[in-house]
Amino acid sequence: MFRLDELVAQLGGALVGDAGVEIRRVATLEQAGEGDLAFLANRKYLPQLQRSAASAVIVAPDARDLLVDRPRIVTPDPYLYFARVAQLFSPLPVPQPGVHPQAAVACAVPPTVEIGPGASIEAGVELGDGVVVGAGCHIGRGTRIGQGTRLAPRVTLYHDCVIGENCILHSGAVIGADGFGFAREKSGRWVKIPQVGRVVIGNEVEIGANTTIDRGVLDDTVIGDGCKLDNQIQIAHNVRIGQYTAIAGCVGIAGSTRIGARCMIGGQAGIIGHLSICDDVVISAGTLVSKSITRPGVYTASLPVQSHAEWVRNFAHLRHLDALATRVRALEHPHDGRNGRNPD
Amino acid sequence: MFRLDELVAQLGGALVGDAGVEIRRVATLEQAGEGDLAFLANRKYLPQLQRSAASAVIVAPDARDLLVDRPRIVTPDPYLYFARVAQLFSPLPVPQPGVHPQAAVACAVPPTVEIGPGASIEAGVELGDGVVVGAGCHIGRGTRIGQGTRLAPRVTLYHDCVIGENCILHSGAVIGADGFGFAREKSGRWVKIPQVGRVVIGNEVEIGANTTIDRGVLDDTVIGDGCKLDNQIQIAHNVRIGQYTAIAGCVGIAGSTRIGARCMIGGQAGIIGHLSICDDVVISAGTLVSKSITRPGVYTASLPVQSHAEWVRNFAHLRHLDALATRVRALEHPHDGRNGRNPD
Amino acid sequence: MFRLDELVAQLGGALVGDAGVEIRRVATLEQAGEGDLAFLANRKYLPQLQRSAASAVIVAPDARDLLVDRPRIVTPDPYLYFARVAQLFSPLPVPQPGVHPQAAVACAVPPTVEIGPGASIEAGVELGDGVVVGAGCHIGRGTRIGQGTRLAPRVTLYHDCVIGENCILHSGAVIGADGFGFAREKSGRWVKIPQVGRVVIGNEVEIGANTTIDRGVLDDTVIGDGCKLDNQIQIAHNVRIGQYTAIAGCVGIAGSTRIGARCMIGGQAGIIGHLSICDDVVISAGTLVSKSITRPGVYTASLPVQSHAEWVRNFAHLRHLDALATRVRALEHPHDGRNGRNPD
Repeated sequence: MFRLDELVAQLGGALVGDAGVEIRRVATLEQAGEGDLAFLANRKYLPQLQRSAASAVIVAPDARDLLVDRPRIVTPDPYLYFARVAQLFSPLPVPQPGVHPQAAVACAVPPTVEIGPGASIEAGVELGDGVVVGAGCHIGRGTRIGQGTRLAPRVTLYHDCVIGENCILHSGAVIGADGFGFAREKSGRWVKIPQVGRVVIGNEVEIGANTTIDRGVLDDTVIGDGCKLDNQIQIAHNVRIGQYTAIAGCVGIAGSTRIGARCMIGGQAGIIGHLSICDDVVISAGTLVSKSITRPGVYTASLPVQSHAEWVRNFAHLRHLDALATRVRALEHPHDGRNGRNPD
Repeated sequence: MFRLDELVAQLGGALVGDAGVEIRRVATLEQAGEGDLAFLANRKYLPQLQRSAASAVIVAPDARDLLVDRPRIVTPDPYLYFARVAQLFSPLPVPQPGVHPQAAVACAVPPTVEIGPGASIEAGVELGDGVVVGAGCHIGRGTRIGQGTRLAPRVTLYHDCVIGENCILHSGAVIGADGFGFAREKSGRWVKIPQVGRVVIGNEVEIGANTTIDRGVLDDTVIGDGCKLDNQIQIAHNVRIGQYTAIAGCVGIAGSTRIGARCMIGGQAGIIGHLSICDDVVISAGTLVSKSITRPGVYTASLPVQSHAEWVRNFAHLRHLDALATRVRALEHPHDGRNGRNPD
Repeated sequence: MFRLDELVAQLGGALVGDAGVEIRRVATLEQAGEGDLAFLANRKYLPQLQRSAASAVIVAPDARDLLVDRPRIVTPDPYLYFARVAQLFSPLPVPQPGVHPQAAVACAVPPTVEIGPGASIEAGVELGDGVVVGAGCHIGRGTRIGQGTRLAPRVTLYHDCVIGENCILHSGAVIGADGFGFAREKSGRWVKIPQVGRVVIGNEVEIGANTTIDRGVLDDTVIGDGCKLDNQIQIAHNVRIGQYTAIAGCVGIAGSTRIGARCMIGGQAGIIGHLSICDDVVISAGTLVSKSITRPGVYTASLPVQSHAEWVRNFAHLRHLDALATRVRALEHPHDGRNGRNPD
C-alpha cells in the first residue's frame, strides 16, 4: 500500500489532485477498481480512461486534464512510470540464503547465496553475493555468476561461462552447450570440431524459458549488458549482441553473426550466419534476414495471410514471376526481336 | 487380448463376421499381421486394405463390403474408433502412490499421489488425487494441480498457477515463467514489468515437450479445456485460448492474442500480439498471422519451395512488384500522361 | 603441446618447413599468435593469411607456397584437418566412473559408467561401457544406451528407446515424448492415440540443447548413424532420417516424413508431414517444404528482407498477383473478348 505522494516522492512526476489517495496495486484501465492505479500509455485507450474505475491514473502531460475527477500522476512516459510503480508493488523475492541439503555443491558458497534442492554445482564455480540457484539447476566447473543474479529452477550452465550481475535466467535455459560445428569427410561423415570458447553474458540480462545460447568455437559468444531475450530463442556459437538489444520469442540467430546495440527483433525472426546488423535496427516478426544491415530502421519480410483459396490463386504465380516480368517487358518493347528477354 | 465382440460391447459399432476373433494389438494396414486389428480411415489406402494381413479391420459403412474375407467393425469414424481401441490396449500406466525419498516436498501429499526422485514441491501447493509428479519436476508455491494430471519428468511449474484435471505435461515444459514485458528508458535501457498474473490451464489439456506458457502481466494467461499443444510451442503472456484448440509444434503466439475454440494451428505458424482469432479457424503450417481473423475457415501464407536456381530467378522480382504493377498499369493506360502512377 | 611432425605422424598431410615447431593450440588466422596453428579453408581469407601471426598454417595444395616464411601442413581439406587437430588438443573429457550418491538408479551399472547427482534411471535400463549420464538426467524403463554415449546434464529419455554408441546429447533434449496424435470427436473433443512406438537413434549422433524427438505411434521414429542435430529442433513421430544428415537449429519436421542420407537442412526450415526427401538434398534456411523432393540439389523458399516502407509498397501486390497476371494476359490478347481470363 502506497499513498500517491509516497509514489511521487520515490519516482518523480507531478501530482494533480488528492495526494493522500491510497493505492493497493497497479492495473489496466479496464480492470482497475477502487484502490487501483492505472495508466494511459496511448491515446487510443482514451475511451477506456473515461470508463475506468481506477482511483488514480498515470498520464502524459497532454492528457493531464482529460479526467479531472481523479488524482493523476503526470509524467512524460506513463508506461515507464507504470513499470517502476509495478516494481515497487512487486519487488523480486528476497533470497533465502542457505544450501538445500539435497543440493550437490562442490564450490565455495558465500553466506548470502540461496541454492535450491537438487541443484548441482561443480568445482571452481564462483557465485557472487545474493545469487539464487533454483531447484534442479546445474552449473559446470569454472563458471562465474555475478552478484544478484537469479537462476529459476532447472537452468543449465555449462563449464567456464561468465554470467554478469543482476541477471534473471528462466527455467529450461541452456547456456554454453556446444556450438554446431563439424567438418565433413568425403563419405559424408561429420567430424566434430571441439567448441572451446565460452558464453559471456553481461549485467542485467534476462533470458527466457528454454532459450539456448551456445559456446563459441575458439572465441566467445557474447551477450551485451541489459539485453532481454524471450523464450525459446536459439543463439548460435560466436554470435555477439550489443547492449540493450531485445529479442522476442522463437528467434534463431546463426553462427558468428554480430548484432548491434538497442536492436529489437520480432518473434520467430531468423538471422543467418556471418552477418552484421548495425545498432538501432528493428526486425519485424517472422522476417528472415539473409544479408547484413548497415542502416538503422525497420526491416520486414513476411507474407500477407489470406484465405486458403485466395492463397492458392495468388501464390501459384510466385513460381512464374520471372516469366511474368519477361512478358511485361515484351509488351513494353513489342518491336524488339528478342522479345524483351534482354535485361533492362 | 480382446475378442472382437468384447471391443464392440465396450466401444459400439456393428460387427460383421466372426465375433470370436482374438485381437492382440492395433496396427496400420501395412504392418498388421495375425492377431492385429487395422483400420481404413481414408479410401486412398484401399490398395493397402486389399494386401493387408490384418485379422480384422475397422471400416466406415461405405467400405463395409470391400474386404469380405475378414471380420469388420463398421463405424462412422474408423480413425476415432481406432483411437479408442488403442487406448484399451495401451491404457495410461497406473500411478504408483508414494513420495520418493529423494524428493523435496513442502506441501501436503494425498495418499494417491506419486512423486518421483528429485522432484521439488514448494509450500502451499495443492495436488489432486492420483496426480503424478515425474522425476526432477519443480512446482512453485501455491500452484494447484487437478486430479489425475500427470507431469512427465523435468516439468517446471512456477508459483501460483492452476492446472486442471487429467492433463498431461511432457518433459521440459515450463509453465508460468515471466512474460516478456519491459518499458524502455530513453537510454535504451529496459525496465522490467513484474509479471504478477497466473497461468490457468483447463481440464484434459496436453502440453508437449519443451513447450513454454508464460504467466500474465496483471491478468492471467488461459488455456481452455481439452486443448492439445505439441512440442516447442511458445505462448506469451495474457494469451487466451478456447476449448479443443490444437496447436502443432514450434508455433509462437505473441502477447494478449485471443484464439477461439476448436481452432487448428499448423506447425511453425506464428500469430502476432493483440489479435483476435475466432472459433473454428485453421491456420496452415508456417503461416504468420498478422491481423485478426473474424470468419471460420482455412488461412495460409507460405511460399512454394523451388530449386535454388528457380528461386533466385523468380524471387528477385519480389523487390520490384510495385514497379511491375506500375508498368502494367502504364501499358493499360498508354495515353495517361501520368504514366499510370495514379492509384487505380 | 604437439610438435608439427607429431601432428603429421598422427593425422597425415605433407609438412613443409620446420618440423620441430611446437604448437599449443589451434586458432583462426585472425586470432592466431605465437604457438598457434591456423588454417586457410577458403581463399577469400587470403588477406588474413598474409597478416596472420600464426606459427604454422594448414593449407590446401594450391595454397602451398603463398606463405613461405612459416611451416605449413599441406592437405586436400584444411578445414577437416583443423577439426582433427582440434580434437587432439581438446579431447572429450575422460568419464569419471561411479554413481553419485544423490542419483536414483534402479538398473545395473557397469563399472565404467559415470552417473551424476540428481540423475534418475528406471529399472530395465541398459547402459553400455563408458556411458556418461549427466546431473539431473532421467532415463525411463527399458531404454538402452550404447557404449561411449554421453548425456549432458538434464537430458530426458522416455521409456523403451534406443540410443546408439558414441552419441552426444545436450542439455534439455527430450527423446521419446508422446507424438502429437489425436482423433477428433464431432464435438471437437480430441481423443488421445497412445504412442507405443519407440525412438531409435544410431551411432555417433549428436543432438543439440532443447531438441525434441517424439516416439512413434505404432512404428518407430528413427535417426540414422552419424546424424547431427542442432538446438531446438522438433522431430515428430515416425520421422525417419538417413545417415549423416545434418539439421541446423529451430527446424521442425512433421510426422511420418522420411529424409534421406547426407541431407543438410538450414536453420528454421520446416518440412510438413508424410513427405519424402531423397538423399543429398540441401534445404535453405527458413524454407518451408510442402511437397516431396525426389532429386538431389538445393531448394529454397524465402523472402528478401526489405526496409519496412519498401515491403509495404511491394507486398501489397502479393494479394493481387492473380489479378495482375490476368491483366498481363489481357494486354497480350487485346482482341480476346474473354479479356484473357482463359487459362494459357
